[in-house]
Amino acid sequence: MAKADSNLSFILNKPHDVTFEERPKPKIQSPHDVLVAINYTGICGSDVHYWEEGRIGSFILKAPMVLGHESAGTIVEVGSAVKSVKVGDRIALEPGTPCRRCTPCLAGHYNLCPEMRFAASPPIDGTLAGYYTSPEDFCYKLPEHVSLQEGALIEPLAVAVHIVKQAKIKPGQSVVVMGAGPVGLLCCAVAKAFGASTVVSVDIQPARLEFAAAYAATHTFTPERVSAEENAARLLKESGLEGGADAVIDASGAEPSIQTSIHVVRRGGVYVQGGMGKTDITFPIMELCIKEVTAKGSFRYGSGDYKLAVELVATGKVNVKKLITGTVRFEEAEQAFKDVKGGKGIKMLIAGPNEK
Amino acid sequence: MAKADSNLSFILNKPHDVTFEERPKPKIQSPHDVLVAINYTGICGSDVHYWEEGRIGSFILKAPMVLGHESAGTIVEVGSAVKSVKVGDRIALEPGTPCRRCTPCLAGHYNLCPEMRFAASPPIDGTLAGYYTSPEDFCYKLPEHVSLQEGALIEPLAVAVHIVKQAKIKPGQSVVVMGAGPVGLLCCAVAKAFGASTVVSVDIQPARLEFAAAYAATHTFTPERVSAEENAARLLKESGLEGGADAVIDASGAEPSIQTSIHVVRRGGVYVQGGMGKTDITFPIMELCIKEVTAKGSFRYGSGDYKLAVELVATGKVNVKKLITGTVRFEEAEQAFKDVKGGKGIKMLIAGPNEK
Amino acid sequence: MAKADSNLSFILNKPHDVTFEERPKPKIQSPHDVLVAINYTGICGSDVHYWEEGRIGSFILKAPMVLGHESAGTIVEVGSAVKSVKVGDRIALEPGTPCRRCTPCLAGHYNLCPEMRFAASPPIDGTLAGYYTSPEDFCYKLPEHVSLQEGALIEPLAVAVHIVKQAKIKPGQSVVVMGAGPVGLLCCAVAKAFGASTVVSVDIQPARLEFAAAYAATHTFTPERVSAEENAARLLKESGLEGGADAVIDASGAEPSIQTSIHVVRRGGVYVQGGMGKTDITFPIMELCIKEVTAKGSFRYGSGDYKLAVELVATGKVNVKKLITGTVRFEEAEQAFKDVKGGKGIKMLIAGPNEK
Amino acid sequence: MAKADSNLSFILNKPHDVTFEERPKPKIQSPHDVLVAINYTGICGSDVHYWEEGRIGSFILKAPMVLGHESAGTIVEVGSAVKSVKVGDRIALEPGTPCRRCTPCLAGHYNLCPEMRFAASPPIDGTLAGYYTSPEDFCYKLPEHVSLQEGALIEPLAVAVHIVKQAKIKPGQSVVVMGAGPVGLLCCAVAKAFGASTVVSVDIQPARLEFAAAYAATHTFTPERVSAEENAARLLKESGLEGGADAVIDASGAEPSIQTSIHVVRRGGVYVQGGMGKTDITFPIMELCIKEVTAKGSFRYGSGDYKLAVELVATGKVNVKKLITGTVRFEEAEQAFKDVKGGKGIKMLIAGPNEK
Repeated sequence: MAKADSNLSFILNKPHDVTFEERPKPKIQSPHDVLVAINYTGICGSDVHYWEEGRIGSFILKAPMVLGHESAGTIVEVGSAVKSVKVGDRIALEPGTPCRRCTPCLAGHYNLCPEMRFAASPPIDGTLAGYYTSPEDFCYKLPEHVSLQEGALIEPLAVAVHIVKQAKIKPGQSVVVMGAGPVGLLCCAVAKAFGASTVVSVDIQPARLEFAAAYAATHTFTPERVSAEENAARLLKESGLEGGADAVIDASGAEPSIQTSIHVVRRGGVYVQGGMGKTDITFPIMELCIKEVTAKGSFRYGSGDYKLAVELVATGKVNVKKLITGTVRFEEAEQAFKDVKGGKGIKMLIAGPNEK
Repeated sequence: MAKADSNLSFILNKPHDVTFEERPKPKIQSPHDVLVAINYTGICGSDVHYWEEGRIGSFILKAPMVLGHESAGTIVEVGSAVKSVKVGDRIALEPGTPCRRCTPCLAGHYNLCPEMRFAASPPIDGTLAGYYTSPEDFCYKLPEHVSLQEGALIEPLAVAVHIVKQAKIKPGQSVVVMGAGPVGLLCCAVAKAFGASTVVSVDIQPARLEFAAAYAATHTFTPERVSAEENAARLLKESGLEGGADAVIDASGAEPSIQTSIHVVRRGGVYVQGGMGKTDITFPIMELCIKEVTAKGSFRYGSGDYKLAVELVATGKVNVKKLITGTVRFEEAEQAFKDVKGGKGIKMLIAGPNEK
Repeated sequence: MAKADSNLSFILNKPHDVTFEERPKPKIQSPHDVLVAINYTGICGSDVHYWEEGRIGSFILKAPMVLGHESAGTIVEVGSAVKSVKVGDRIALEPGTPCRRCTPCLAGHYNLCPEMRFAASPPIDGTLAGYYTSPEDFCYKLPEHVSLQEGALIEPLAVAVHIVKQAKIKPGQSVVVMGAGPVGLLCCAVAKAFGASTVVSVDIQPARLEFAAAYAATHTFTPERVSAEENAARLLKESGLEGGADAVIDASGAEPSIQTSIHVVRRGGVYVQGGMGKTDITFPIMELCIKEVTAKGSFRYGSGDYKLAVELVATGKVNVKKLITGTVRFEEAEQAFKDVKGGKGIKMLIAGPNEK
Repeated sequence: MAKADSNLSFILNKPHDVTFEERPKPKIQSPHDVLVAINYTGICGSDVHYWEEGRIGSFILKAPMVLGHESAGTIVEVGSAVKSVKVGDRIALEPGTPCRRCTPCLAGHYNLCPEMRFAASPPIDGTLAGYYTSPEDFCYKLPEHVSLQEGALIEPLAVAVHIVKQAKIKPGQSVVVMGAGPVGLLCCAVAKAFGASTVVSVDIQPARLEFAAAYAATHTFTPERVSAEENAARLLKESGLEGGADAVIDASGAEPSIQTSIHVVRRGGVYVQGGMGKTDITFPIMELCIKEVTAKGSFRYGSGDYKLAVELVATGKVNVKKLITGTVRFEEAEQAFKDVKGGKGIKMLIAGPNEK
């Protein structure tokens, strides 16, 4: 389907209505921009959500949009002012470009930029295409021994890095991670790389916990249909964390997990909401109050996160290869979405349209 | 009723059953302790709650207990190792003594000490008595120009100081304070002393808001029976805070206030839960997540809070006199509890049994 | 000398060799830029230093350069994308433009940007001219009741704000400020606005200390020709700070002041180097080590500093009017430099060439 | 020489004058105290310094004092209130007891306690004896697989932990450690355990650098007799740290190392003074100022440091065994001091007098 030097794009027209379209190759707009040939793109839960629902919160699909934002590629053209990368460099692509001028941007929190242009968040086109333009400073060179497939995993790893930074994990600490999907698993691995001594992975699927235990968790826990307090008490006892966990990360978005989290975290501990789920939930607010818990949201990734994600893979501290279930040809993108929706595997990659 | 040199004590036997009892004068136990003659004690919402319900959360009245913990007094005896105060010193009394040996204590968070002995938290007796013993380092000298009645207000002021510190208020910032009771009003005043430029007081009682505006708030807001989003949007518009408030403090414990708080706080802002209320509430967790809000509990007060509270009164930065509704004799303590329960005034003081 | 709509510029050719030159009016380059008519410019010690020496550290004058960087002006033209200001707005001008793309910029520390283009730091032209272009986000609107002369003082005030932030001054703390020149005086005022209870101004000139005491200091101190330890001991005793000061700011650059600073700061306290002076000095490094002092440099100003400086003036928390010695016509710029060099007054302003 | 159940003590009478003395076995004073039989004690540079000079700074030997403070032992008796340890437990002994009541103690910085009673800091006796009493919370249980010899290394490891915490080392960062003595080597190992990617060990002795490279450093550097700027430039180039190091730790106390450190650290980076040396040195203060370096002292260890040190050894993240040169009998203590003074080996242990 893809012609040579194709910019074939995988487009969501409306929920469950996708098409492939050969679009004009994008052009560099600024002297600081580069043109990237996309090699591999991972499928994210949010992509699937748009495919199914056409919206996430206030981001609503109003016109056809290219999907995809977890990509690695190769630099094929550079603007006149570009210094840090050159044609031929293999890079992980950070898929959101902030305005660089607002208060959050100037304060170093560009992930909170209200004018952020983020790939595959309506109305901005995503990266499931042949080519994509990016400012050079959002392209991160991959060392030779890191593959482009691994490069496509840098995006969810950067999500996990940001979550773990929000949780202020320090060496010797204990961390409980709710949810053993791709981000939850990566949070376990990053927490360990940050020096956590105890990493408890929590999920309701035994197969996922088995994977987590082999991958990065020191303990696993399967919640039962009992109260949050009871699950919390058992979790802490079974993990040897009687005083409570130093940090709890929710990478599930599930209401019972969040409730349990607040009972699991120790006095003065940190809880981070990383997973997306219901807008409003029943929340044990007085427990947060009297234990002086710090609860934080975590949204995408910011300054230094991509750089550290590449570093963690390059130094072998986090293994992302193990999470790659398989790679399909670009033309099989829709089937891949269906497979991910069906819960098949952990992380499925789609090759770029020019990838052999 | 009180004899000369009385240790008459105001005792809660069970809910709504209080008695006065002449107890033996307490004795200094450690060379670091002092004996304090209590001059004035304020009535706190938690005292009223024990009087009515016999419990707060897991603190349950199982045996008769002296009420009261917001006190100022005069040193009448000092242990052999005491250096920082002397007989005759007028002091504000910090009413909780931590173990000094656990992990939170050694880390500087003694308010999170699991072995804290806190006045009028069962089973520890409170300060509504003639005398009380305390370690010297929990007694804070009042400057000459600060009265003992003002001294009794240092406790709720320390609560507010701790809340405002948790909120990390910095000069030039905007703060919204939910609830205009004693702690809410003091939070407004402390936020201003910390340099906040905009301080919005929120309450449903017009008289309280009127007081708040005259006392310390730059804006006031009366919520309506609409959604949290709608109240938040109107609050921000009316207060000139279109991008959201830098910090929001809940000093109300009311579910709709907490919900509104999360919609009022800006991206990357701070929300502090200071007020006590329902154990579990419906909470906009995804709003916290995507705005990367930091939500914190605030529990009592810790290192440096009492010292700063005395300083704020001594330097005139916070006026606590304006909050004192009146002072009653010790023998009128029960009626005073009924008045506070009935919503009379802002802060009622009870004189010590030896006070003329 | 200045024609109507003049871009007359005050140019340093080489040390002590200045000329006035009618240069072409600058043009807006980016849709985010504005053109500012300069109303008033203060003279800074660094301007005088370039005028005398032609260099500061590694910044060396190699070609003629317009002097001046402490300016307020009026927007006269806006680029197509400008939203936050409009023609006619009176603004304080932040005179350095960072690259917005390097690691420090993305991390929120644009003052550390290695590609910073800063007015009157060679080879970048300064603001002692009729017009200047700036990105809109480096222009800060002055409220109606703040004059353009006050606006020219926002620059040194932002320097002081940055220093005081580096010192992490909190309410109730004690601060010692070495040097009572413009920045030292402003540090005293900002420290007070941040809630410092004790502010000690230190200088060797009695007239400056007299001014400091009337302006913002709670105590003053004149060092003698004795050891740093002796000066420190006397300073602490006379200021009632026996345990040491919470923070010490050096706004003098003088070696004995810096040495005394380290002896004045308490265990665990903060010392900030704000003033420029000798490259290398004799420094009591073991005192820093065993007291666990945090010593920090402070360089220019960064995210939020200008905004807060405007706010402090607008709310009356810092009075900059008192520091303005006088205003001279643009044509008198050279004499003004000579006067500043001669130590005349505190802050001298130069009107823009189109100012009547 | 040691009788059965001996409290034989190794006593410094005056510089170079040591004796062995059979002292009375100490008794538990407080219900929170335990009695520890000392198994092994490491020799620290400060012990050797007292042995040679009789003083360190303001700590001056005025009466005979037992030396030693790097010890592991076995609990042989517990006070009535002791809960966390029991007779027979093998522990690492934190050798300083703070007052628990002063401002630094209550704020969580007990290492800055002005009333600290620290072993072998005059006039407090040290641990080179048969028995020592300690509060239970300053005894840290060793896991079964950690030997008592390793336990004696927990003290210098806690010093390194505190230094690395002061340096705020985060995963992916670069660290330069000046000095490859025991503390410098441990700083390299701890920095790595904290996730540092690049760890440069600097020393003038090739054998030490060789050890460092095998032990924990990723790079080594030998300074030459050139300027600090030149050494810094070459160090950065050879280590691939062109923009400067994120953190620099001085564990040498040597003036040229400290000077080089400030040139090595990046803009906005952190420098920590961990090593003891000359009181005053020539210091590049303007470099600190314009790069906004944060320079910090590090003094002993504080809240959580010992606990983490035990954890790092228990989990194998730091290997302290490799640093143990050998163990001598108690009666050979003086010769061991001479050997350490002579630069023999890395860390020499002295067995307790009751050790077989």
